Amino acid sequence: MDRYDLPSRDLKLARREARQERTVVRLGNGAAFGGDTLAVCAGPCSVESSEQIEATAKAVAAAGANVLRGGAFKPRTSPYAFQGLGERGLVMLRTAADRHGLAVVTEVLDPRDVPMVANYADMLQIGARNMQNFALLREAGHSGKPVLLKRGLSATVEEWLMAAEYVLLAGNDKVVLCERGIRSFDSETRNLLDLSVVPLLAARTHLPVVVDPSHGTGVARLVPPMALAAVAAGADGLLVEVHPDPAGAASDGAQSITPDEFSTLMRELAGIAAAVGRRLPAKTLAA
Amino acid sequence: MDRYDLPSRDLKLARREARQERTVVRLGNGAAFGGDTLAVCAGPCSVESSEQIEATAKAVAAAGANVLRGGAFKPRTSPYAFQGLGERGLVMLRTAADRHGLAVVTEVLDPRDVPMVANYADMLQIGARNMQNFALLREAGHSGKPVLLKRGLSATVEEWLMAAEYVLLAGNDKVVLCERGIRSFDSETRNLLDLSVVPLLAARTHLPVVVDPSHGTGVARLVPPMALAAVAAGADGLLVEVHPDPAGAASDGAQSITPDEFSTLMRELAGIAAAVGRRLPAKTLAA
Amino acid sequence: MDRYDLPSRDLKLARREARQERTVVRLGNGAAFGGDTLAVCAGPCSVESSEQIEATAKAVAAAGANVLRGGAFKPRTSPYAFQGLGERGLVMLRTAADRHGLAVVTEVLDPRDVPMVANYADMLQIGARNMQNFALLREAGHSGKPVLLKRGLSATVEEWLMAAEYVLLAGNDKVVLCERGIRSFDSETRNLLDLSVVPLLAARTHLPVVVDPSHGTGVARLVPPMALAAVAAGADGLLVEVHPDPAGAASDGAQSITPDEFSTLMRELAGIAAAVGRRLPAKTLAA
Amino acid sequence: MDRYDLPSRDLKLARREARQERTVVRLGNGAAFGGDTLAVCAGPCSVESSEQIEATAKAVAAAGANVLRGGAFKPRTSPYAFQGLGERGLVMLRTAADRHGLAVVTEVLDPRDVPMVANYADMLQIGARNMQNFALLREAGHSGKPVLLKRGLSATVEEWLMAAEYVLLAGNDKVVLCERGIRSFDSETRNLLDLSVVPLLAARTHLPVVVDPSHGTGVARLVPPMALAAVAAGADGLLVEVHPDPAGAASDGAQSITPDEFSTLMRELAGIAAAVGRRLPAKTLAA
Repeated sequence: MDRYDLPSRDLKLARREARQERTVVRLGNGAAFGGDTLAVCAGPCSVESSEQIEATAKAVAAAGANVLRGGAFKPRTSPYAFQGLGERGLVMLRTAADRHGLAVVTEVLDPRDVPMVANYADMLQIGARNMQNFALLREAGHSGKPVLLKRGLSATVEEWLMAAEYVLLAGNDKVVLCERGIRSFDSETRNLLDLSVVPLLAARTHLPVVVDPSHGTGVARLVPPMALAAVAAGADGLLVEVHPDPAGAASDGAQSITPDEFSTLMRELAGIAAAVGRRLPAKTLAA
Repeated sequence: MDRYDLPSRDLKLARREARQERTVVRLGNGAAFGGDTLAVCAGPCSVESSEQIEATAKAVAAAGANVLRGGAFKPRTSPYAFQGLGERGLVMLRTAADRHGLAVVTEVLDPRDVPMVANYADMLQIGARNMQNFALLREAGHSGKPVLLKRGLSATVEEWLMAAEYVLLAGNDKVVLCERGIRSFDSETRNLLDLSVVPLLAARTHLPVVVDPSHGTGVARLVPPMALAAVAAGADGLLVEVHPDPAGAASDGAQSITPDEFSTLMRELAGIAAAVGRRLPAKTLAA
Repeated sequence: MDRYDLPSRDLKLARREARQERTVVRLGNGAAFGGDTLAVCAGPCSVESSEQIEATAKAVAAAGANVLRGGAFKPRTSPYAFQGLGERGLVMLRTAADRHGLAVVTEVLDPRDVPMVANYADMLQIGARNMQNFALLREAGHSGKPVLLKRGLSATVEEWLMAAEYVLLAGNDKVVLCERGIRSFDSETRNLLDLSVVPLLAARTHLPVVVDPSHGTGVARLVPPMALAAVAAGADGLLVEVHPDPAGAASDGAQSITPDEFSTLMRELAGIAAAVGRRLPAKTLAA
Repeated sequence: MDRYDLPSRDLKLARREARQERTVVRLGNGAAFGGDTLAVCAGPCSVESSEQIEATAKAVAAAGANVLRGGAFKPRTSPYAFQGLGERGLVMLRTAADRHGLAVVTEVLDPRDVPMVANYADMLQIGARNMQNFALLREAGHSGKPVLLKRGLSATVEEWLMAAEYVLLAGNDKVVLCERGIRSFDSETRNLLDLSVVPLLAARTHLPVVVDPSHGTGVARLVPPMALAAVAAGADGLLVEVHPDPAGAASDGAQSITPDEFSTLMRELAGIAAAVGRRLPAKTLAA
């Protein structure tokens, strides 16, 4: 349809064939997605207070995570649910991460907020609900910041790669894909974690792929085994919700594991990683 | 969770019980959603040229539609696909609608574009991909314009009503819900049109509900029977893609019907409407 | 793969192109599926007692149904749930139907039971769970009895037509397809009624298609509007669960309507049928 | 509903709480499901010839499998597709298995065939399409043979456990559950492998759980990584389609791996198994 002056491209930028080597996305503290070392992002669903995020950052860094996750702008199904602490939360998140040598990944919801969030974050998260929010994708692309692009609730692999293409086409090739479960029919789990996309994407794209077993199951007890399975399937990293007091969490308590459970998971993960030729991040000095 | 200063509300604004009467959303030209007379929105997927939109407006007005639909900002899965004519398309759309006594419904994708699109449109469409784009919902709410809120690709009825709540809570009670098919497993149709939500929503909310059998099936041949079924199930109106030359359409040709097919559909619809106590819009003088 | 001595056939028997005219399946009492007159099958989920089935048969015949439905062999998810009265139930069903001039459709679960069930029924129902129970399909085919083939819980249209092909290939061309809802993600309804298959099948096969809005929604309140929608979409008939005392039903009470509600539905249905060129069955003398 | 003389049981037989220890299902050759040692079932989709099954049995035994899988009665969507060699195939399967010290698992489709198939098999497979074929479940239960119960295409965990209950209630407690992928919306894979059921079932039932990554993905290249992931998630074993010549297979060629690929998989699996406290079966002497 050249009559509309579209960019045209025989080979989409995200395709395996478009790049000789697999992309490795590196954050400021040395955390990398796509290399031999896994990227382990951990932290609460929402930043709730300085104390909460500091305690979590300390614990996850000690257990071997290298990226701190936490939401300051929360996309909530209900307008009556906690919407996040906003910029105040970002300050808390950045402070806690810096103190423990962690990088920061956090979600941005509004294209107008991209510059401000980019000011605090090492990596911008585009959430599942916004996978096809094209204005947001373009803005995140233009920011030049690494982007963690979550899969939409019912997105096909092709649609997901095309969403990544919006970021890449804006001149930003630092995109990491994150499987976080899709919608299915059994209400036992919040979502259905689709681990087959991990090897599927490895053949289709040069971009790294990580897995979020917390949203992917919605059930804390299922998070550790699915985290192990994700790495066994070839994932380049994990995104895990950890909260010092899941029962008292402002959001997603049911799917958050405790710092102790996270620490146990990291020990079990070492063996799985080794079996597939990967290793865990080195613990940061600051932790 | 009042510790975070949230709006609290025992009775959600969208609930049936929150309002004594069913909401009727009226547009400038007299078109109404939720009354005895159906609202019939018809037009092309994309505005492509003055000639195309003028020809379509003339034809659909003559057949009895009272709202012109057409996209100037298109949410396309691929960044390499036609993205719409932008504001230039809105001018064409408004001009054609006015000439034929039609109201205008058109999609807005970016919260920053809401004031500009509201300048041309009688009704703002929030598309399926943006059903949980909360920044966009709030901005559309604040505009005060009637909002057509499409159901997300895999949204439950509860999630959909909660998305409407974001608009209502912004002080805008002119919300119309639009069923447009959900994602399912059979690739015979583009989406799976879920007509059971029509009576389900009637019991759950006071807001009007319309059906889009074009996106709901993705197959032109299935559009007329599903339009009839929608009205039989109690829908307050329809959203139908009509294109003078479906095979040459810039987008969605496979699911667009011709002006002649639309005209036939409107005749068949009259009998169904009568059988359930509704009537078609009176034809506009201008047509 | 002729090396395995398979039947081969360029044109599948169920395809539209395999037969010049649309198939009309006729039962003993004159009820027909696929003609201008609709087939209306009504009755309880399970046959529970002589009194219950007699009362229901009387009421549905009076309201204009021409086929009595009722299960004597019930496929229950749990082995601890009511499994049906077996042959004793078939006797009750046949007696009640005969007294009111109705034909009988009832489910068979086990290939070994086909001859016995065929002894009482005018039409054998193959349930959704058994759509790909090929031994049962072949046995039903060999019986020569009309077969009502329900769509599997997650069957594509192609898989459904291939299941019908097993019956047709056994020399039995009296097959009626029944849409009864598929599995989806929203727990508001028991299943998701897919009415788009009605016009889709009309283009694909010469076999008649009926709709079961009772299983298709699982919610009594949704049954009448979806029944109207089904006929508006072109269905050749309906299968509706009617019970004199839904709250006391041994199974499926939540989706059963009362005889009074059924009677109201039949009156509303007359207008919809007329609008699409169909008519309701003539009331039987016996009723 | 005791008015119908139903078995009643406060605690379902399949529940975790109904049995003090986890069930271990043992086959004649020492293969066990549910213990520290994994059960590895491998073989072709269909038994095609003595040569094919002998070559496959030899190769999979050499690579460390302890159970030979292969279908002699095939549940095919189309009646025009290869239906299996029947009893002739069972003889071939048994002979090849015995020569290489393997146990036999094979599918039975018809309740009338259960005694005959049980004569050749160590374990009866109930396929996905028959998960709620209750006549078949009861018959398999009464046979006393170990039963491999595959999950239905769109079965919830509760429905699956209730299907197992039919076998258990027939006095047979040797049931192994097999996840083999469910129906979803992305056509990239044949089914969507749901590994979260592995830890979910571990908490819900005392029965062993195995995973079939071949049907679970439908894509040979995805089978090895998903097999590793399954064991990492805690599966008690695997069911893998292996064919000496996938391109020439009578069925399921696209999802079959070669003996060499299977051998590589088994080596990689050893490390994963060790990391979660399991081990591979000892190689049989006969191999």
